[in-house]
Amino acid sequence: MRNQNRFGTGAGALALAAFLACPTSGASAQSMSDVQRIAKERGLSTGDLLAAAKTFTPSGMKDEYIIFSSGGHSGQVFVIGVPSMRMLRSIAVFTPEPWQGWGYGVGNEILKEGDVNGKANLWGDTHHPALSETEGDYDGQWLFINDKINARVGVIDLRDFETKQIVKNPLTVSDHGGTFVTPNTEYVIEGGQYAVPWGADYAPISEYKEKYKGSVTLWKFDRKKGRIDKAQSFAIELPPYWQDLTDAGKGVSDGYMFLNSINTEMATGGIENKNPPFEAGVSMNATDYLHIINWRKAEKVYKSGKVTQIKGFPVITLQTAIDEGLLYLTPEPRSPHGVDVAPNGEFIVVSGKLDPHTTIYSFPKILGAIKNKTFSGKDEFGVPVLDFDTVVEAQVEVGLGPLHTQFGPDGYAYTSLFLDSAVARWTMGGAYGKGTPEPDWTLVHKTPVQYNVGHIGVAEGDTVSPDGKYLIAFNKWSVDRFFPPGPLLPQNFQLIDISGQGADMPVIYDMPIGVGEPHYAQIIKADKLNPWTVYPEIGWDPQTQSLDPWAPKPKMERVERKDDGTVEVYMTAIRSHFSPEHINVKEGDKIVWRITNIERAIDATHGFAVPQYNINLSLEPGETAKFEFIADRAGVFPFYCSEFCSALHLEMVGYLMVEPKE
Amino acid sequence: MRNQNRFGTGAGALALAAFLACPTSGASAQSMSDVQRIAKERGLSTGDLLAAAKTFTPSGMKDEYIIFSSGGHSGQVFVIGVPSMRMLRSIAVFTPEPWQGWGYGVGNEILKEGDVNGKANLWGDTHHPALSETEGDYDGQWLFINDKINARVGVIDLRDFETKQIVKNPLTVSDHGGTFVTPNTEYVIEGGQYAVPWGADYAPISEYKEKYKGSVTLWKFDRKKGRIDKAQSFAIELPPYWQDLTDAGKGVSDGYMFLNSINTEMATGGIENKNPPFEAGVSMNATDYLHIINWRKAEKVYKSGKVTQIKGFPVITLQTAIDEGLLYLTPEPRSPHGVDVAPNGEFIVVSGKLDPHTTIYSFPKILGAIKNKTFSGKDEFGVPVLDFDTVVEAQVEVGLGPLHTQFGPDGYAYTSLFLDSAVARWTMGGAYGKGTPEPDWTLVHKTPVQYNVGHIGVAEGDTVSPDGKYLIAFNKWSVDRFFPPGPLLPQNFQLIDISGQGADMPVIYDMPIGVGEPHYAQIIKADKLNPWTVYPEIGWDPQTQSLDPWAPKPKMERVERKDDGTVEVYMTAIRSHFSPEHINVKEGDKIVWRITNIERAIDATHGFAVPQYNINLSLEPGETAKFEFIADRAGVFPFYCSEFCSALHLEMVGYLMVEPKE
Repeated sequence: MRNQNRFGTGAGALALAAFLACPTSGASAQSMSDVQRIAKERGLSTGDLLAAAKTFTPSGMKDEYIIFSSGGHSGQVFVIGVPSMRMLRSIAVFTPEPWQGWGYGVGNEILKEGDVNGKANLWGDTHHPALSETEGDYDGQWLFINDKINARVGVIDLRDFETKQIVKNPLTVSDHGGTFVTPNTEYVIEGGQYAVPWGADYAPISEYKEKYKGSVTLWKFDRKKGRIDKAQSFAIELPPYWQDLTDAGKGVSDGYMFLNSINTEMATGGIENKNPPFEAGVSMNATDYLHIINWRKAEKVYKSGKVTQIKGFPVITLQTAIDEGLLYLTPEPRSPHGVDVAPNGEFIVVSGKLDPHTTIYSFPKILGAIKNKTFSGKDEFGVPVLDFDTVVEAQVEVGLGPLHTQFGPDGYAYTSLFLDSAVARWTMGGAYGKGTPEPDWTLVHKTPVQYNVGHIGVAEGDTVSPDGKYLIAFNKWSVDRFFPPGPLLPQNFQLIDISGQGADMPVIYDMPIGVGEPHYAQIIKADKLNPWTVYPEIGWDPQTQSLDPWAPKPKMERVERKDDGTVEVYMTAIRSHFSPEHINVKEGDKIVWRITNIERAIDATHGFAVPQYNINLSLEPGETAKFEFIADRAGVFPFYCSEFCSALHLEMVGYLMVEPKE
Repeated sequence: MRNQNRFGTGAGALALAAFLACPTSGASAQSMSDVQRIAKERGLSTGDLLAAAKTFTPSGMKDEYIIFSSGGHSGQVFVIGVPSMRMLRSIAVFTPEPWQGWGYGVGNEILKEGDVNGKANLWGDTHHPALSETEGDYDGQWLFINDKINARVGVIDLRDFETKQIVKNPLTVSDHGGTFVTPNTEYVIEGGQYAVPWGADYAPISEYKEKYKGSVTLWKFDRKKGRIDKAQSFAIELPPYWQDLTDAGKGVSDGYMFLNSINTEMATGGIENKNPPFEAGVSMNATDYLHIINWRKAEKVYKSGKVTQIKGFPVITLQTAIDEGLLYLTPEPRSPHGVDVAPNGEFIVVSGKLDPHTTIYSFPKILGAIKNKTFSGKDEFGVPVLDFDTVVEAQVEVGLGPLHTQFGPDGYAYTSLFLDSAVARWTMGGAYGKGTPEPDWTLVHKTPVQYNVGHIGVAEGDTVSPDGKYLIAFNKWSVDRFFPPGPLLPQNFQLIDISGQGADMPVIYDMPIGVGEPHYAQIIKADKLNPWTVYPEIGWDPQTQSLDPWAPKPKMERVERKDDGTVEVYMTAIRSHFSPEHINVKEGDKIVWRITNIERAIDATHGFAVPQYNINLSLEPGETAKFEFIADRAGVFPFYCSEFCSALHLEMVGYLMVEPKE
């Protein structure tokens, strides 16, 4: 038909693998004057170039730090590199995500653990990720994250960055104040938020004080199994204040934990009945209560059996907590967001967002007040209230709307200012007093951010040994910072260089977040993480992190029809075909389909997509997966590899043929 | 209880709005030597600094171009800025996405349009976005995208960047070759892929040639309604080759369209029966067929009624297409990916991935061959095959695994090389011959990319007036480019500066894609887009893009119990409360809940999240939404704002109380 030679040698040309790459460009002539010329053309200042030099990460250069950020109401976790501020991965946790095969085929068992009263709730409102710790330092092994909308906790394995477990809190339906870990990850702490009756059962809001409950849950983490052990977990009943953020003590305060609360007024809203709306009702008192809990003592009380089973879960009642002396309160500036324990555990920093100060409590003073019973009274539930003046160490006026505090390695602390849209740098005192040139407990500088910062994150800034260097402002509004992609604007993660001192802390990068609304993030040194790049062996089941004896292997691919009518498919995938390629079943058949990616090369992921049946898998090298469905629609359905794997990727296809019933 | 003054003035302090920001940093002392020092510390070369100067986009500077990228098997569309390469937004299309309220409350009507044979298929495999065009140029008004896994097309309104319509193709279940638009967006073209019987009905694969069908669908777009008009759309039956990518003619070739095909062998696989696997079977012949279709003639044939109703959809049968002279074939290098029409419409560039050349067809020669009936024969279905030597203009040896071609403004064309992992720059001839210093139809340079590039995108590079300047290589593998977030690695979008000539085309940025697997993207000048930043009026329904007469308004908030037992909620949201705050219903009640965000400030989005009932809305300023559910679980469910809106965001809450049945 035509000149064959014109189309090259086909498969022969494919084999000719030794292609000599051309040099990238005429780069030899580049000089700093070119840099300055281009910068001028684009309107960049020397300060901008300096920021670029601090953040630009050329092809192949690895990031120094890794951010694990909540995805907010995306229900996921985001993995971001620092200083490049590039998103490396979204990890599916509470929300199905087809491209990683989460909830579209396999993965349903784990998602199903998160059912709420037997109902699928297929999204989450993730807030506070917590990396596992050893002696108060990130160890890079596990990640935990809460779901505020339905009070759940997800467990992620940092070998493959995949979710392994979801636990649903049986006592409440609202858990903003989690997750946080104790210094050796003995427990994953899930604080509360909006009070509800136990188990979110019904009680009219007029019975709020009697029937609505606060609580904090301590989920026991079993490192060996890599799972939360529900059978060794317990909760502590608290007054129906809206317990909020939590931090675990460390160093001198190891064994304790600290919880904020918002609504000690116990306001119940009702704007429609001329009551003050919640926003006003919960902001009436000048102070709320910092909760001080001795969790080691609570663990002993739980183990001694002094618990009440509520909704099938062991609870240390409020009265027991009071009687056992494991719960104390002290006033804190009203409507606080953050409670943050200093690296050595000596200080607890609380910011009430309606007070321009941060308030610093001394843990030794708290211990003294408990020992000496220096109480200013009791709350209306009988919980002793430690005298504020006895336990406070200092207050620093930082600005309007202070929320969260993180720590540097050098005696500086940093507090986000929501109303000022700024990040404050201030000096600590005590053992930290020598680290900074400025006097103790003093505001040093405020860097404006764009706009309305919620949490901030400093590199390892909530551990016993902060790295400093980088601070990220997790800004809630971006307004005019980016091209507007419609009325729904991205958030803005701003990277701040905090390696200098004093007023030297410039914003060096703006990263729009165009997915979800991240709340908090932790920043870990990248070299503490040891992720797998392929699964250890062919036939690996990521759900159990072990070899699956049923995994299809090469030369054992087959389709089997069982006596009960079930059709079992054993399939392998390798560039660029599935085996077998034809799957013939009958309408109504139950199909149990196993498939193994038998690749060993890094990045040789195959997708596996089936039309009509809402199935998509992501099979990383070595991974095996099983999925089941009823072939309830007759027809011809071409399945294919949905992750571009090779030159013949489009040809990696097969046919599921469902023959109609007579 | 304690010294009131210590906690500042509370609400008074809030009113003190005039905060004087500190200067950002000690920036005055910055100089180029600081830039060089920092660069040296981080190991950056002068070339890296030059790349940084070309891409770094400081806070508040807007991007010059906007990428609309498919999200691959995420089912979504990604919006990315150029040259900063920052993701501004994920637009939910085929997959529910809670943070933007897509499929978790409202939005279900549109998602439901995408049901497949009455079954929800809640993900998509998006491949080829197509911006609407006027006279062959992007006009910035609409965006279309296909779903390969179930043969659907989504329609996105670029006023609010939200999906407005999903149409399901009734004839097929596989549509890789879409979407592409005709030069005035008269039609949205949805090509095919894996052949199936009409409607994906059952037929054994042994009857492949008789029962399995190829097709291309022309969806009529009604600009005024902003919707595909199904009643004015039609399809053309094609041989059961796997029709793949498509491009519409323009300029001299306006009125035509061109489709690739893969499997002209009509191989049916079956590795399990010792047949050649698909990857081999579909690669046997040295050539496949380029399909040449006169769509204006097809439109006339359709309007004249010469169609057959198949699955309720008008189809121009293959025989009619032959008889009417609207379909021709010509050989093309085997297993092609791209078919790309040059800006002036004169040339059609095809790359067969198993041939190291690009093959350039001349449209005038094609027209001549049709007129003169210069056929080399017919295919086995009777379609005339134009003689290759008569219609080909040139072949350029570009390298191994050529896939897709885009065009610059200056006579350069660019082709992605999957196996070489490179982007080739080569010169066009004809009217373009004068633009470049090099001879016509010559390879000029290859820039290596990391790794295995699929599509490429040049700024407006597939329109009648390419901008050039930037090229993006959409690389499928990243391997060692980034910190590995487990075995599932990101893709790598590499930005290449093509503003120079000859060998001057360096990679200047690596962007990891940590969500989905994008396939293709279009790049539009940002100033062509005119997005809304708030909805036009309070009470706006984005699903209809009009004012909703039922939208709750301030002072008209209420809860109404209807005679049929339905409870209607009319709620407003404004910083920082909902009104009403208490919703009392009875177990089993049907709730119809309307809520309006009455804000007018840019970025004042509120979320609205309800536990237990799997509901989350995203309410942009002015937006109203309606959702319905049966209150089938008694209990107390605190709903809240799930998008951090204000200092009192955590206090923006209310209680849904579902009283149990007796």
